[in-house]
Amino acid sequence: MKINSKRLSNHLDEVNLITADGEGMTRPAFSELEDQAHAWFIKKSKEHGFRTRQDAFGNSFATIGPEDKKGILIGSHLDTVNDGGKYDGALGVVTALEAALTLLDENIELTKPVTVVAFRAEEIGLIGSSVFTDLIDRSEGFEDRLAAMNRTVATVDDSIGYEDYTDYVELHIEQGKHLETNNLNIGVVSSIASLNRMNVTVHGEAGHAGTIRMEERKDALMHTAKILTEFERIVKSYGHPNVGTVGQLTVFPASSNVIPGRVEFSVDLRGDDMDQLNKIKEEFRKYTEDNHTVDIIESPEKEPAHMSEKIMDYIKTSAEESDFTFEVMTSGANHDANPLSRRMNAGMIFIPSKDGISHNPAEFSSTEDIEAGAEVMLGTVKKLLAE
Amino acid sequence: MKINSKRLSNHLDEVNLITADGEGMTRPAFSELEDQAHAWFIKKSKEHGFRTRQDAFGNSFATIGPEDKKGILIGSHLDTVNDGGKYDGALGVVTALEAALTLLDENIELTKPVTVVAFRAEEIGLIGSSVFTDLIDRSEGFEDRLAAMNRTVATVDDSIGYEDYTDYVELHIEQGKHLETNNLNIGVVSSIASLNRMNVTVHGEAGHAGTIRMEERKDALMHTAKILTEFERIVKSYGHPNVGTVGQLTVFPASSNVIPGRVEFSVDLRGDDMDQLNKIKEEFRKYTEDNHTVDIIESPEKEPAHMSEKIMDYIKTSAEESDFTFEVMTSGANHDANPLSRRMNAGMIFIPSKDGISHNPAEFSSTEDIEAGAEVMLGTVKKLLAE
Repeated sequence: MKINSKRLSNHLDEVNLITADGEGMTRPAFSELEDQAHAWFIKKSKEHGFRTRQDAFGNSFATIGPEDKKGILIGSHLDTVNDGGKYDGALGVVTALEAALTLLDENIELTKPVTVVAFRAEEIGLIGSSVFTDLIDRSEGFEDRLAAMNRTVATVDDSIGYEDYTDYVELHIEQGKHLETNNLNIGVVSSIASLNRMNVTVHGEAGHAGTIRMEERKDALMHTAKILTEFERIVKSYGHPNVGTVGQLTVFPASSNVIPGRVEFSVDLRGDDMDQLNKIKEEFRKYTEDNHTVDIIESPEKEPAHMSEKIMDYIKTSAEESDFTFEVMTSGANHDANPLSRRMNAGMIFIPSKDGISHNPAEFSSTEDIEAGAEVMLGTVKKLLAE
Repeated sequence: MKINSKRLSNHLDEVNLITADGEGMTRPAFSELEDQAHAWFIKKSKEHGFRTRQDAFGNSFATIGPEDKKGILIGSHLDTVNDGGKYDGALGVVTALEAALTLLDENIELTKPVTVVAFRAEEIGLIGSSVFTDLIDRSEGFEDRLAAMNRTVATVDDSIGYEDYTDYVELHIEQGKHLETNNLNIGVVSSIASLNRMNVTVHGEAGHAGTIRMEERKDALMHTAKILTEFERIVKSYGHPNVGTVGQLTVFPASSNVIPGRVEFSVDLRGDDMDQLNKIKEEFRKYTEDNHTVDIIESPEKEPAHMSEKIMDYIKTSAEESDFTFEVMTSGANHDANPLSRRMNAGMIFIPSKDGISHNPAEFSSTEDIEAGAEVMLGTVKKLLAE
């Protein structure tokens, strides 16, 4: 069994012709360019003999096999961030298409339908897949948020479609460097991390940089330095896969000759075990509140999404059958497989990202790595068909 | 000997009627409001029988006593920052005026001229006093900088006037909280700190907050946290009066889900001993360069300005004669006395600032503290006259 590597890379090149001017790929959610990418996907699938459809929200589907059974869903998304890369999303769609095409080439018996899906607007919060799984946030302002997407509540209600499927498999680039660094072909995703956000304000006392003695200061930035170092220590003490990041930090009043009176910073904390995450947050809160003057606002966290053990086994076995090395890992980034996993068996196949770079024109995965991922996707679908 | 506290506070109130709308005092350098304040000073001094003049640059002088001898110069500046306080600068001018008026009231023998000076544009870099002392920075772009002040090289050359004076005494609010905290009436300034500026860039590697493991990161902000803590430790280890401040800090790319790839921050380092300051900079550079990836750009530092031992003794003796408590201290903030001290004997009298607040509408010094400062100024001038 061999996928057609050239056909796969041609498809990837074709979809990446659809982009705004600029260095990287730009197909923003709900833009005309995203529409064009979906139109390309529908047209291409139709040419290959798939039954195609778009739901009212704009998610695109291409199916082979029988019509009267619950099916296998494989795919990803076609939108990108601005000046993103060629692989994030698009590779998952064209790899799924390639796996389905190989099933046709090989005349594999289709015991149930196999559907390739391209979801909408993944990059702005897994919107298309959340609509499809009826997990979209319908809290206050829902209609206004939909209006901004040129959508209505009716289009959302019409697009709930998860009940027709039993399994979902998505191939994606790792967007980290673990596979590359450890010379691994395949990542078998066990869970998608819970994302916990905090906004922290550290209070001090502004003052003249020349006239207030060191021992008389309440320097909000020097307090913050100690808080950051302690935060890093706490997160590290809980080990992999917990990760904590302070990506935004603002000093007030931000004058070179004024002692900072206030610092505000963001905290992004991820892991696959809510107990551990809650302990990290507790330790962090205790240290900061005991030693500094702070306000901490926590955003409601989302539970980690657990992948199906069955699909993980299929992915592992498929990798072994082709002599690919693999490792079970948590995904720190969020993916369409997150909402899908709450409605059906879900699994994710990661392939290496060069230098871990993503959301950037320099995003790159080698032809060999892509081929290996596509083979594993094909093997996994075959095992699902053989159930 | 007693100054007229009511007259002094009336003068302070009068000059503070000249301000832009807003909560605090706003008489920016080279504004029409600064011009008005100088016009008020000239008019008021003339009414009291002083000989007045303005130099071509706009510094204002009011003199009593003989004309044919080198004189004693006392005063400060009349410009303010935007929304500044009522005391920074203006108090030094009206206190000097009050000391001179008391000399007249008491018919003290004027063995040499006593001149009250109001300098221009102190708040934007001691401009007026640097012109007066021929210490203004004449490096490339000088004419353009002058044009922005509505001045020419000729006005600068015409305004060099330091050779007519032997001594300079300035009263100023402390702008720190040391005097208030320690219940002291008077600060006897021994030196004005050398200001050393650095711009530091810390290099890391940007990456996805979810996908890069803690041990794989080069987080520029976490590196910076350690650098800041070490900087504070080094400065403190050298003790008073060394102070170090990081007032500006910017994180790149500043997204909550991206590991910081670069951090830039300012360093403001002050002290009165270049040897110690150089050792602090050396230790800081060694620690950062050995442990992190950094670029450090140092701005050329200015040597500390040392006040005259003779005038310091006169200030101390005058304080003792009136039973005022005092302490010898370094000024962390810069003052017109800095360039003046490089051309003649100079001294500074500090009085307490409530809560150390300055450059702010809440700037405040009590009537009692102002009166004490004015008495010490008067005593110091009398000792200079008696030489």
